[in-house]
Amino acid sequence: MTARHQPVLGILGGGQLARMLALAAAPLGVNTLVVDSAADACAGQVAPLRLADWTDYAALEKFAAEVDVVTFDFENVPAETAHWLAERVAVFPDPRALAVAQDRLAEKTLFRECGLQTPAFEAIDTRADLERALATIGAPAILKTRRLGYDGKGQFRIKQLSDADAAWAALGTQASAHGLILEAFVPFERELSVLAARARDGDFRIWPLTQNWHTDGVLSLSLAPAPAVGGLQARAEELARILAERLGYVGVFALELFVKDGQLLGNEMAPRVHNSGHWTIEGAITSQFENHVRAVLGLPLGDTSARGFSAMFNWIGELPDAAPVLSTVDAHWHDYGKQPRLGRKVGHATVCAAKPEVLAARIGEVARTLGREEQAASALHLLAK
Amino acid sequence: MTARHQPVLGILGGGQLARMLALAAAPLGVNTLVVDSAADACAGQVAPLRLADWTDYAALEKFAAEVDVVTFDFENVPAETAHWLAERVAVFPDPRALAVAQDRLAEKTLFRECGLQTPAFEAIDTRADLERALATIGAPAILKTRRLGYDGKGQFRIKQLSDADAAWAALGTQASAHGLILEAFVPFERELSVLAARARDGDFRIWPLTQNWHTDGVLSLSLAPAPAVGGLQARAEELARILAERLGYVGVFALELFVKDGQLLGNEMAPRVHNSGHWTIEGAITSQFENHVRAVLGLPLGDTSARGFSAMFNWIGELPDAAPVLSTVDAHWHDYGKQPRLGRKVGHATVCAAKPEVLAARIGEVARTLGREEQAASALHLLAK
Ligand SMILES: Nc1ncnc2c1ncn2[C@@H]1O[C@H](COP(=O)(O)OP(=O)(O)OP(=O)(O)O)[C@@H](O)[C@H]1O
Ligand SMILES: Nc1ncnc2c1ncn2[C@@H]1O[C@H](COP(=O)(O)OP(=O)(O)OP(=O)(O)O)[C@@H](O)[C@H]1O
Repeated sequence: MTARHQPVLGILGGGQLARMLALAAAPLGVNTLVVDSAADACAGQVAPLRLADWTDYAALEKFAAEVDVVTFDFENVPAETAHWLAERVAVFPDPRALAVAQDRLAEKTLFRECGLQTPAFEAIDTRADLERALATIGAPAILKTRRLGYDGKGQFRIKQLSDADAAWAALGTQASAHGLILEAFVPFERELSVLAARARDGDFRIWPLTQNWHTDGVLSLSLAPAPAVGGLQARAEELARILAERLGYVGVFALELFVKDGQLLGNEMAPRVHNSGHWTIEGAITSQFENHVRAVLGLPLGDTSARGFSAMFNWIGELPDAAPVLSTVDAHWHDYGKQPRLGRKVGHATVCAAKPEVLAARIGEVARTLGREEQAASALHLLAK
Repeated sequence: MTARHQPVLGILGGGQLARMLALAAAPLGVNTLVVDSAADACAGQVAPLRLADWTDYAALEKFAAEVDVVTFDFENVPAETAHWLAERVAVFPDPRALAVAQDRLAEKTLFRECGLQTPAFEAIDTRADLERALATIGAPAILKTRRLGYDGKGQFRIKQLSDADAAWAALGTQASAHGLILEAFVPFERELSVLAARARDGDFRIWPLTQNWHTDGVLSLSLAPAPAVGGLQARAEELARILAERLGYVGVFALELFVKDGQLLGNEMAPRVHNSGHWTIEGAITSQFENHVRAVLGLPLGDTSARGFSAMFNWIGELPDAAPVLSTVDAHWHDYGKQPRLGRKVGHATVCAAKPEVLAARIGEVARTLGREEQAASALHLLAK
């Protein structure tokens, strides 16, 4: 019996994704070390936390020496930081994949190259660009910052052409620093996402498609497997695989998709575990968190089948009462250990069942008891079909 | 939105049970603080660890001030320590329940008072007591220390009456300090355990009966739900409930049972989460770890139904290769983060399936790949019936 070395997974960013990654890493015998600039980063409750910002290279140097592999909780780690780390320690996904996903223009261009259609889009650097692009794309459209947007932040909806001034007033100052993009507003039939995992050896898996509903640009509810997707599952798998291979991607990523006229359009790629995959903790044979850890550490991937049917409620701002969830059969509570704050993702609950009609009953019960009928309404409507 | 206080669960002992409790506590928003005298206690990899032994009252005083509730990873915490803490902070289960479970004589006496039969037994304080008891009980029999035994330690098997001298030579010196007990050796048909949870408000649940196989006194494999138990499930529930109510028990406990002539006999009670309940992490709607945390914190208990069929392989001494388990569908790896050591519980794997025959195939595959056919043989034999 020889003494063993336990691998240490370093995570850049210490939010709920890092927290759930650390909880998934532990049973694999993998220890986690988190870097964040906030002393109360919630992953620090379950793993050691090093305080540093993304340009504190002295701290990052120490961090790199302490870990075996580095990955991301946060996709907007500056590209330079990611590249600098990659010269010192294994970093997955590769900083190049991160760079593509950080830029809505590069991302959508890549989508098209891979055969995934997107909403019409144009790069916008100046007020004149916006004018020209609106003439081509028309209204409604959405002006977005190319970089650093999340949860619907850094977006302006142009309902009619006369909103152009207001849009520029809101985002124009960011044109030079982050770049802007104008996208056609897609009156989509549904929003889906596909979670995919790619191993170091190229093994590739996707979970069943998830259907998502957003409120004010923030994910509100997910349902998985998304009902009645027909050939879209195979199509999403094909596209996600092409994209992953093109990027030499290692780890879990999500593609956010619109369905329009029965076809998939690519909205964006998240180069990390994703909120719409939280249901996989209880609802799939292997969770997105566990497979991400397995992938970046070079372990075999686990099966990504669903166990049954699941719905995830996102808790935004503050947590509702836990008791109705804890008292519901096969409903699971996830408190991220954060202080409440407007618009903040503070937790989620996943409700599971072997049959869709039982899932609907359980969702209905949870929603009713919590006074959250509106949050569940669209999913319940779909399940009732 | 008001700032929140996250409850802190204090755990006495920092082994794998504390580790898995901490991992189950986190999604509930419960932080964990562990006390152990070993700096490398494996729960310290997932939760903060305070170094102290059970008589370091200065350290325990600080610990008590830092936590909201105290529970046990280790049942042999001295009764005085448990009582001392209970005067300062809520301790669950109650130290009185712990005291009963620490003493094989008190435990078996209580079992009988609750209607649970036991192997014939006699308290042994002297060599003459042993002689007298052997005359009544006969051989084969087992001489055990009343206190501080675990994993078959502190036991001597008396195959024939002439082994009495050897038994006394092995354990006689412990008669005055810990007391001894002589038990009839039961040629049992099978070994079962029942895991039960009781909430602060008296709500009571049991998981499906688990069948267990031991090697050299240490749990080797568990199968759940135990096949073909007929009325024993209801009987186990009744007995566990009576016992729990009698003790005012709060939390999860296990009863280890023998089946002889189709009847249940009580072997011992573990006043804590138990190795034979590890399958509940993936194999039940709510795990023993989560329900223990819920119970001691006064939260509603979760459903204890099985999701399908599960088998747990215990890894003793050192871990086998993880890859065959990671590559098997619905097989789950649990590395406790310990250094290898002879006889040490260092991890487990749980293999799950919706159908017994699929479970048998998966168990067979894992056992074959790891060269562990013997460990799985009895369970496979039973599943083939
Ligand atoms: N071109 C579009 N047409 C229609 N709806 C859109 C479009 N772009 C964004 N949306 C809506 O706004 C939501 C958030 O947009 P997007 O994904 O671009 O924002 P984000 O800030 O990157 O959010 P996330 O946190 O999901 O990554 C989308 O899920 C969708 O509901
Ligand atoms: N009276 C008995 N008759 C037959 N077998 C017995 C008897 N007592 C113990 N055994 C066998 O030895 C195993 C371990 O015994 P016991 O549970 O008393 O030990 P322990 O050290 O307390 O172990 P644990 O770690 O399981 O609590 C039992 O599971 C059973 O297989």
